[in-house]
Amino acid sequence: MVQQQAPGLRVLVIGAAGMIGRKLAAAFAARGSVGSSPIAHMTLADVVAPPVPEDGVVDAIETAAVDIADPASAAGLVAPRPDVICHLAAVVSGEAEEDFDKGYLVNLDATRWLFDAIRAASADGSGYRPRVVYASTLAVFGGPFPDRIGDEFLTAPATSYGTQKAIGELLVNDYSRRGFMDGISLRLPTICVRPGAPNKAASGFFSNIMREPLVGEPAVLPVSDTVRHWVASPRSAVGFFEHAAALDTSRLGVRRALNMPGLSITVAEQIEALREVAGPGAVELIRRERDPLVEEIVSGWSEDFDPRRAEQLGFEADASFEDVLRVHIDEELGGRLEAWEGR
Amino acid sequence: MVQQQAPGLRVLVIGAAGMIGRKLAAAFAARGSVGSSPIAHMTLADVVAPPVPEDGVVDAIETAAVDIADPASAAGLVAPRPDVICHLAAVVSGEAEEDFDKGYLVNLDATRWLFDAIRAASADGSGYRPRVVYASTLAVFGGPFPDRIGDEFLTAPATSYGTQKAIGELLVNDYSRRGFMDGISLRLPTICVRPGAPNKAASGFFSNIMREPLVGEPAVLPVSDTVRHWVASPRSAVGFFEHAAALDTSRLGVRRALNMPGLSITVAEQIEALREVAGPGAVELIRRERDPLVEEIVSGWSEDFDPRRAEQLGFEADASFEDVLRVHIDEELGGRLEAWEGR
Repeated sequence: MVQQQAPGLRVLVIGAAGMIGRKLAAAFAARGSVGSSPIAHMTLADVVAPPVPEDGVVDAIETAAVDIADPASAAGLVAPRPDVICHLAAVVSGEAEEDFDKGYLVNLDATRWLFDAIRAASADGSGYRPRVVYASTLAVFGGPFPDRIGDEFLTAPATSYGTQKAIGELLVNDYSRRGFMDGISLRLPTICVRPGAPNKAASGFFSNIMREPLVGEPAVLPVSDTVRHWVASPRSAVGFFEHAAALDTSRLGVRRALNMPGLSITVAEQIEALREVAGPGAVELIRRERDPLVEEIVSGWSEDFDPRRAEQLGFEADASFEDVLRVHIDEELGGRLEAWEGR
Repeated sequence: MVQQQAPGLRVLVIGAAGMIGRKLAAAFAARGSVGSSPIAHMTLADVVAPPVPEDGVVDAIETAAVDIADPASAAGLVAPRPDVICHLAAVVSGEAEEDFDKGYLVNLDATRWLFDAIRAASADGSGYRPRVVYASTLAVFGGPFPDRIGDEFLTAPATSYGTQKAIGELLVNDYSRRGFMDGISLRLPTICVRPGAPNKAASGFFSNIMREPLVGEPAVLPVSDTVRHWVASPRSAVGFFEHAAALDTSRLGVRRALNMPGLSITVAEQIEALREVAGPGAVELIRRERDPLVEEIVSGWSEDFDPRRAEQLGFEADASFEDVLRVHIDEELGGRLEAWEGR
């Protein structure tokens, strides 16, 4: 079959059923372009078929239920020669720690199969060399930390998930240096406020103590309110991917993994922002109940960054945590706090 | 066959036909112990059967021709449950750059198969958890560099070889953290003086300009004599492996990759040491003939380190470059310079 070359970009999002993946697909569909290049076609892939964004200006959107842990999947995803590939599919931290084989299979092997499929496609003489935006994580770092983590701090992960992501970053760098692709790795902050049901992940409380009170529900704070962490809203995270997809990568050199900007904020500051945005009644719904296990896990996390390179390249963090809450109210609660205000 | 458990350690050296591997095998055989633990048995493996050390106090030494690029090899190497595994087998820098697939196969896949075979063995309930000493390299680093590279500098390799070794280090850390093995990665300096025939690798001249004049032969210096690099003698490198094999790894924490000590020395200082040890006639055998390609490659290499962690853990560099030359004369020239002095 002759492949008709459509004008405009072909975009592939892998992991498009996940929280960030869905929002990213919706943002691409709404904007209809990557930078100044119009999007002609989008493929949204995940292990279950992702939803098609409800609104937008991209007509040609297809969804695909693809298990990247099947070695045969990657060639199929790359066959239509997507110009932009956002790779967000992963086994998350807790599961990669519980199931060693599954974590390495999905987070390392499947990523390498994808990159090797791109490499094979790039060898056909057509000059194919897609932009690849790889979702990485601050979990590539492990303590002890300096007060602020700079752009040249070592990757010494304290989890298998962080290890697998650090390896993925190295592959992005090498496969890009060799000319097979044009990659960039985004080390995402803790995403807050995460929508959806309360999450039992160790980091879940950062979102729970905001999201639940905003709809009049109680939430548990398992750590001291002096705990500091590095956060970005889902909207900022989506913005990082869009910016990376359109970035002039000649400015990156061979170091293609970037610490994304965020807010360094304590739990106490989060709570004050909640008071500011939703009033004291919301704050009263937070119950303090220390959990030594969560406290120990969180004590090993990085608190503050100096993400100078990403900032110089135009990546932008949220302006304030109040803004983060307003983004959540806007995106998830239809812009209103009525469920809670009704009390 | 019932495996008789001999008293003392079982030692496995993979890559035992290589320059450092042979010297390491000879050192283990001569000492007959790892730290204070006697060696009961040694297996020396390489893609061709390595030589058996001529002297020594270890009676049970077997050699094995094993291609680690065959996925079935690893289980066989691990089956006798070696207590100490030194893994030095690798495709070198130039070849890994020329043959992408071979580099990833040997330096990444085969390393992972080895570690997975250890993991499988460790799961049998016997408490098996071998010491693994992994040969890594300063090529895990890429420029731009600080004046001195500290222990927390990022790994941003500029070659596929460096990428593969950086990934190996991450696996050593994670597999050790998970309790499958007790690993340590040694980032070796440039080894100088390398014995053997003149080497066309970009780094070869660092050794050539010493080794050849020491036997009365000419050698070409392709770079300015202001070029600075980080070197260790083969004897020091062997010492690093022996020290790592016996180290108390509880002092390492989760960061198990260490920058090895060395000498930061310019080519001019090398030449002065040669004059000191072998006289002005030796120095006159060095012909200066700049090679822009070699100059460009070498300009991307690290020059100086502050290997504080390794030093605190008892790893020791050569005392001076004169000593490095004397080690070479001692080990490779029978302690004498007669071939040259005869002129």
